[in-house]
Amino acid sequence: MDLQKFFNPSSIAVVGVSHEKHKVGYLAAKNLIDQGYKGEIYFVNNKFKGEILGKKVYSSLKEIDKPIGLVVLAVPAAIAVYLFDEVHDLGIKNIVLYAAGFKETGKEGQVLEKLLDEKIKKYNLNILGPNCIGYVNTTKGVNVTFLKDVCPAGNIGFISQSGALGSMLNDYFNAHENLGFSYFISLGNKTVIDEADALEFLVRDEKTKVIAVYLEDVKDGEKFKRVSAEVSGRKPIVVLKAGSTKEGSKAAVSHTGGMVGDDQVYGTVFKQYGVIRAAQLGEFLTLLKVFSFQREPVNRSVLVLSNAGGAGVMLTDGLIRERLPLVTVSPEVKEMIVKSMKGKKITLHNPIDLLGDASAFDYEKVIGAMLEEKNIGAIIVLLTPQANTEIAKTAEIIVEMQKKFALPVYPIFMGKKSMAGVGRLFEKNKIAGFANFDHLPKALAKINWWRENFREGGRMDNILLKLDSFDADRPENKRARHDGPLRHYNLSNSMETLASIGIPTIPLYLAKSVDDLRTIVKKTGFPVVAKIASDKITHKTDVGGVVTGIKTMDEMEIIFKKIVGARRASPVHQGMYIQSQINGFEMLVGAKRDPVFGIVLVIGLGGIYTELLKDIAYRIYPFGFEEFRKMIKETKQYKLIGGFRGSGPIDEKRLYHITAKLGQLMENNPQIREVDINPLMVSDKIISAVDCRIITENHIPNK
Amino acid sequence: MDLQKFFNPSSIAVVGVSHEKHKVGYLAAKNLIDQGYKGEIYFVNNKFKGEILGKKVYSSLKEIDKPIGLVVLAVPAAIAVYLFDEVHDLGIKNIVLYAAGFKETGKEGQVLEKLLDEKIKKYNLNILGPNCIGYVNTTKGVNVTFLKDVCPAGNIGFISQSGALGSMLNDYFNAHENLGFSYFISLGNKTVIDEADALEFLVRDEKTKVIAVYLEDVKDGEKFKRVSAEVSGRKPIVVLKAGSTKEGSKAAVSHTGGMVGDDQVYGTVFKQYGVIRAAQLGEFLTLLKVFSFQREPVNRSVLVLSNAGGAGVMLTDGLIRERLPLVTVSPEVKEMIVKSMKGKKITLHNPIDLLGDASAFDYEKVIGAMLEEKNIGAIIVLLTPQANTEIAKTAEIIVEMQKKFALPVYPIFMGKKSMAGVGRLFEKNKIAGFANFDHLPKALAKINWWRENFREGGRMDNILLKLDSFDADRPENKRARHDGPLRHYNLSNSMETLASIGIPTIPLYLAKSVDDLRTIVKKTGFPVVAKIASDKITHKTDVGGVVTGIKTMDEMEIIFKKIVGARRASPVHQGMYIQSQINGFEMLVGAKRDPVFGIVLVIGLGGIYTELLKDIAYRIYPFGFEEFRKMIKETKQYKLIGGFRGSGPIDEKRLYHITAKLGQLMENNPQIREVDINPLMVSDKIISAVDCRIITENHIPNK
Repeated sequence: MDLQKFFNPSSIAVVGVSHEKHKVGYLAAKNLIDQGYKGEIYFVNNKFKGEILGKKVYSSLKEIDKPIGLVVLAVPAAIAVYLFDEVHDLGIKNIVLYAAGFKETGKEGQVLEKLLDEKIKKYNLNILGPNCIGYVNTTKGVNVTFLKDVCPAGNIGFISQSGALGSMLNDYFNAHENLGFSYFISLGNKTVIDEADALEFLVRDEKTKVIAVYLEDVKDGEKFKRVSAEVSGRKPIVVLKAGSTKEGSKAAVSHTGGMVGDDQVYGTVFKQYGVIRAAQLGEFLTLLKVFSFQREPVNRSVLVLSNAGGAGVMLTDGLIRERLPLVTVSPEVKEMIVKSMKGKKITLHNPIDLLGDASAFDYEKVIGAMLEEKNIGAIIVLLTPQANTEIAKTAEIIVEMQKKFALPVYPIFMGKKSMAGVGRLFEKNKIAGFANFDHLPKALAKINWWRENFREGGRMDNILLKLDSFDADRPENKRARHDGPLRHYNLSNSMETLASIGIPTIPLYLAKSVDDLRTIVKKTGFPVVAKIASDKITHKTDVGGVVTGIKTMDEMEIIFKKIVGARRASPVHQGMYIQSQINGFEMLVGAKRDPVFGIVLVIGLGGIYTELLKDIAYRIYPFGFEEFRKMIKETKQYKLIGGFRGSGPIDEKRLYHITAKLGQLMENNPQIREVDINPLMVSDKIISAVDCRIITENHIPNK
Repeated sequence: MDLQKFFNPSSIAVVGVSHEKHKVGYLAAKNLIDQGYKGEIYFVNNKFKGEILGKKVYSSLKEIDKPIGLVVLAVPAAIAVYLFDEVHDLGIKNIVLYAAGFKETGKEGQVLEKLLDEKIKKYNLNILGPNCIGYVNTTKGVNVTFLKDVCPAGNIGFISQSGALGSMLNDYFNAHENLGFSYFISLGNKTVIDEADALEFLVRDEKTKVIAVYLEDVKDGEKFKRVSAEVSGRKPIVVLKAGSTKEGSKAAVSHTGGMVGDDQVYGTVFKQYGVIRAAQLGEFLTLLKVFSFQREPVNRSVLVLSNAGGAGVMLTDGLIRERLPLVTVSPEVKEMIVKSMKGKKITLHNPIDLLGDASAFDYEKVIGAMLEEKNIGAIIVLLTPQANTEIAKTAEIIVEMQKKFALPVYPIFMGKKSMAGVGRLFEKNKIAGFANFDHLPKALAKINWWRENFREGGRMDNILLKLDSFDADRPENKRARHDGPLRHYNLSNSMETLASIGIPTIPLYLAKSVDDLRTIVKKTGFPVVAKIASDKITHKTDVGGVVTGIKTMDEMEIIFKKIVGARRASPVHQGMYIQSQINGFEMLVGAKRDPVFGIVLVIGLGGIYTELLKDIAYRIYPFGFEEFRKMIKETKQYKLIGGFRGSGPIDEKRLYHITAKLGQLMENNPQIREVDINPLMVSDKIISAVDCRIITENHIPNK
């Protein structure tokens, strides 16, 4: 969607303009003038005669009789939809629609929503909203919002699914220096223009250096993934995502289905497609400041200078927790510092502690030496207001030194009474300074993560939209599409399905009578596992329906009689499955279809502890082997992969292929909703599926 | 330790007073006068003639010739220690010692430290410091610190192990309203007065309503536990603990030893003894504000009112994450609201959304109705600055309504430019208002936890310092003390030790030859487990030294030859242990001796996944059954206790007794450093130790 003209209109008409100061139609008109828009502005109100804000008021769009680049509809929903015909007749394509009262409300809204949809499709319109507060382009002075104040200009492109949160951010930036918007875009109901369209537009905007997003949901998962993959390599996207406590679908049947909630899926998409997610509002603002001032850390290593033991220790805790190594200064820099301090006491570990009586001069000397240190990513300068602390002077020194060096210096000046003006001084000079140490370590860790994995598209190929080292065209992989998709899968045909797409399985043999057992054992040998064969029983272990470690014929007969003989009603069971028992540890490999983002693959701890311990990792299909390695490293079970308790290392490539094939199975068979391979038995000698569930859309739950 | 006179001295002498304004000796003198101390003040300096700050300067303490309640030593370490004789001769017991340069520095400091210790013991002195910045008693106007400013008076008793962090907090409170200190106590090196002494003093102080602590370590664990148990039932203690990333002791041998780090132990002590731990500085300040203004929630339920969809959703996320239920208003209150809104649109879910155009009047009506709601714990009022938002007026309405109701209302007014003066207005009226929603949910959850478990000593008996339903005097429990404590425990005598104190074990039989096997099997029956018998091998599974599920004599012989026959060098193994195999799930029960806090007990997931998945919970011994139930609920394995996959519920009381006995074993045998029972096999039919390691102080690690 090309929104270039939408966000840079040559002229703007505001319909529903008002002289009543609290009305949206007045506020929008005033903001447009106050933000300094240079193009033609037309005010329209069919009931008002005279001027508003010194401008003529037209009675209709038609009356204007000049080309209109953008129409702002500041009228109620029911009126707005009827204006679309006129808009279309005048050749106008771009509309901002404030009105609430569409699909987000009750029955009445549904009717209007339908009408809206019809007109949009019929006339092929670009609409922002409805139920939005409009947008601002600070470069061109377009402010078609009813925000309380105009927007400060800056390099942050902001996309918000909540007008109120946008209002808050604007109010916040208006009280700061050098923090402002390139664009401010309120999405509202996203009937046409959605987050992905706005992202796509902002990535091409020269002025935008960082994209900030407040998100409640994603409208089109496929588009969001595609655009994020494109954007995140070029510009940081920082997201504040609400709704993070929604639980996994209650209707899920499989382990995988039950464990993968909405928020996990969003988290996975963000991680895989390079979107930085802020966990708190404070962290969001911290990330925006660092990016906007272009003070990103060069690498993970941090040097800390402090005049406050306690604060230094707490900051250190935060950095270590985020795996940001605190480096100790090199002997050369150490010597420089010692020399410059001329015998004054100082602790030269990291943090370097200047002690409570540090002067501005002390700070200057030591920061100067620290800036000479090689291969560090950033410097943090902590200061607390002690008796002789030269706060303003130290702040000015940091400003001067930062001007000379590219390495970012983050001052954290703590306290409040003595700190008046300090924050503003730093901001004026685009120095990313903070008032406490709560959010910086997390923010730096996230920036480094993004930098290492996504910036400049460096590693995007690792997670690109095709499978590497997995040839989708090979015959056994092609077979993943079943000719006649099954409506219902039991254990037996679930396992056969896996086998048919090249996932190694341990064959199952069905014994319907004691006589069958002998024939089967000739194929399996001992030891074997016996499982009740039943389409009705979901958790076989719970009903004593699984027996492992059977080593003799006698044992097996006894078990057969116990398991099969004891069940009264047919068709509860069809007999007993016999399967060779193999050694290894138990993994889960699963897949689930997410309504927004597609196929979610899951790997992790299998066996009876799967749901109890939830040691699992998620990815959106498809992804490459390098991404799979990251995925598996997120599980605690990962240590087993490298070899554990006598077993050699596991073939990760084979694990990857099995996982990828499960994704392909889902892709080729849209009727499959969830799949669990649990357990997949894994050792250095064998990797093989031992049990499996495939759930289709037609699945009828037991009870 | 009675510190009543120490913190309320009748007269104060400052030794080392100075006229140089940047010196500690000047700042301390000035603060004492500025804070408004009414008692006699004496300044001492043997090199200075004349007056300082309008007061006579004595040449020595002796010269004063009047009773002195407290001496402040603002002199270097080397001089200070030599003043103690004079102090003693004058009958003075109370000293504040600023000087650094003792044990925290190098060799030189060690000498002074020794001297300091000797004098203190000889003269039985109360000393605050050294290496501290002194203390403040705002009620009496005692300020013997070299803080930058005097301390605002208030009801927060503050104890700090860092002078700098104290300086920061004082600077912060000085820029706020109604936030201040009853006492400000800088502990320094804690040579005499430590955190527990200060806590004990503050709990008895009427003016102190909340105790805030910045802590790096605890000097005396037993005293800290005793005092916390006493204090936490009466006043909230809010701790900011640094050093949280220190890892577990690298020298640990057992699972338990390796998994229990310093920070886990601190966290456990805080939890068990009712200390509220703040995770971030922002959370610390949030907790202090709520407690200081005495706006604690009445219960966990929260009603939220908002004019901002997005912010409301994010706040809701935070509340749900902290298990604070958002209640929906009752039909009666709903009706009240609907009536009062006179047809205006409003979303009546929780959060109640007034929408962007909410007026102060709207807020007033709805808050009024909400306050009528029964059984809720608190109300949160969110506001973002939108076009027509009446910020100041809404703030004033909240102030007026809070005056009339006991139920706490927490306003969160977001933004910045439009919010000037709002925070101050709330503070002036002791309303716990905030600028964002980052910290409040966590703070409310922690306050509720404290309220439910500790306030007014309600449930302290659950965690009291004796074991309930466990009679320590019963003969089998008394046996926990070994007459001749072993220097070294192998598997066999570890298991015997467990059995001797009444912990059920599955007996081990040592087979030295194939002939032994037959005799043993007569006792054990099949199936059995075989384990290599070796004092040298720590992880038997790793070397293939454990075989389970042996069901026949033939099998056993083959395994014996493989395990025992294959090992070349004696005394690597002494043969093979045979043990009956039982069913159940595997737990770990362990114990570790912590140098500060004593015996730490651990329960959780046993077996090969213990260290990989670390699903464990900790408690400090001793503790009662109710606390044990909380402990076990912290593990994910807890669900198994209620019955799982065919097994009935587990006897928690028996599990508790086994855990308690392990604690008693440690208590009675100081040479034992670590114990692991892993696995403890657990089912509804049997709870029994299957393997065990006991590590003594004499343990010599294998390589």
